[in-house]
Amino acid sequence: MQSLKDKILSEGTIVGTDILKVDSFLNHQIDPQLMDAIGKEFAGAFSDLAITKVLTIESSGIAPALTTAFHLGVPLVFAKKTISKNLDNDTFAATVHSFTKGTDYIVRVSKKYLTSDDNVLIIDDFLAKGCALDGLVDIVNASGASVAGAGIVIEKGFQKGGSRIRLKGIRVHSLAIIQEMSEIDHRIIFSDKE
Amino acid sequence: MQSLKDKILSEGTIVGTDILKVDSFLNHQIDPQLMDAIGKEFAGAFSDLAITKVLTIESSGIAPALTTAFHLGVPLVFAKKTISKNLDNDTFAATVHSFTKGTDYIVRVSKKYLTSDDNVLIIDDFLAKGCALDGLVDIVNASGASVAGAGIVIEKGFQKGGSRIRLKGIRVHSLAIIQEMSEIDHRIIFSDKE
Repeated sequence: MQSLKDKILSEGTIVGTDILKVDSFLNHQIDPQLMDAIGKEFAGAFSDLAITKVLTIESSGIAPALTTAFHLGVPLVFAKKTISKNLDNDTFAATVHSFTKGTDYIVRVSKKYLTSDDNVLIIDDFLAKGCALDGLVDIVNASGASVAGAGIVIEKGFQKGGSRIRLKGIRVHSLAIIQEMSEIDHRIIFSDKE
Repeated sequence: MQSLKDKILSEGTIVGTDILKVDSFLNHQIDPQLMDAIGKEFAGAFSDLAITKVLTIESSGIAPALTTAFHLGVPLVFAKKTISKNLDNDTFAATVHSFTKGTDYIVRVSKKYLTSDDNVLIIDDFLAKGCALDGLVDIVNASGASVAGAGIVIEKGFQKGGSRIRLKGIRVHSLAIIQEMSEIDHRIIFSDKE
């Protein structure tokens, strides 16, 4: 998706070998017009699959997942990372390791909002090692629903999550795949596979 | 906003004396078409104020804040509750008490995304005692930006946050104000003040 790649090139900053900061438009400050275009793109890419629900994980997945759900005309469910009085006790749960935060956490979805009739499109902002996506796939599987596919805003193609998850037979559609990036000369090279 | 009130009446459930669960359309599963209508409503209500930025707090505020920002044509910033490698060290911060979770937490916004030139519309899903809103107002004040007002999806009018914050001179626009609710006879009465 060219407008996204342009935005990554103009505003993304690289920290170390594997952190791409896109907090000016994706995961802290958010560009709502770009999110809408992203949602349209995902809705178009998965329009053949009779999606009944979009699933993401709080918090950075919510914006692109909301616009995707809007353009598909289906509800969005976001998996929760913390327990609160507002969450049912009866949940599907999965453990996820966060390399960004250096911790494990449990993600939960109320059993009310995923059923065996659902055909679920998973949306997330990033795909690197794929741990969050694994957790969401586990939750969909536990509910008896089908995983229609996964829509990823930015995939770090130089990490192994994307290829590992595609090998499981899951259709992964990434809007920008970064093949190579370097803090030293501030270089970002996209793969042409998306 | 009548469509929101209808949704609260048909899908909201009351737990104890002060929890209104609206997790079927607002804070776990999300109805994207309703969120879009909510965003239009807030954008219209504050259209006279030359808003430059929408501010909310992760996670449940993101959906209504995104659609509001979309309809205003301005960026959205969401305050973060956790530290990660993706967040700058240089932040505006405020401490917030969560009655729902029974804990204090710190919310942070990178100094890059709020400046003294900004005129900020704060959006949140709920207003009860007003602690989250206080925290966001503190952050805007610390940045030197102006608080244009606050748009709240559901205000619990029987708690004191809304009147306390209005007394500070902040324009609070709530789409549904609950005057009274009762688990026993499953009764929800809206105020006609919104």
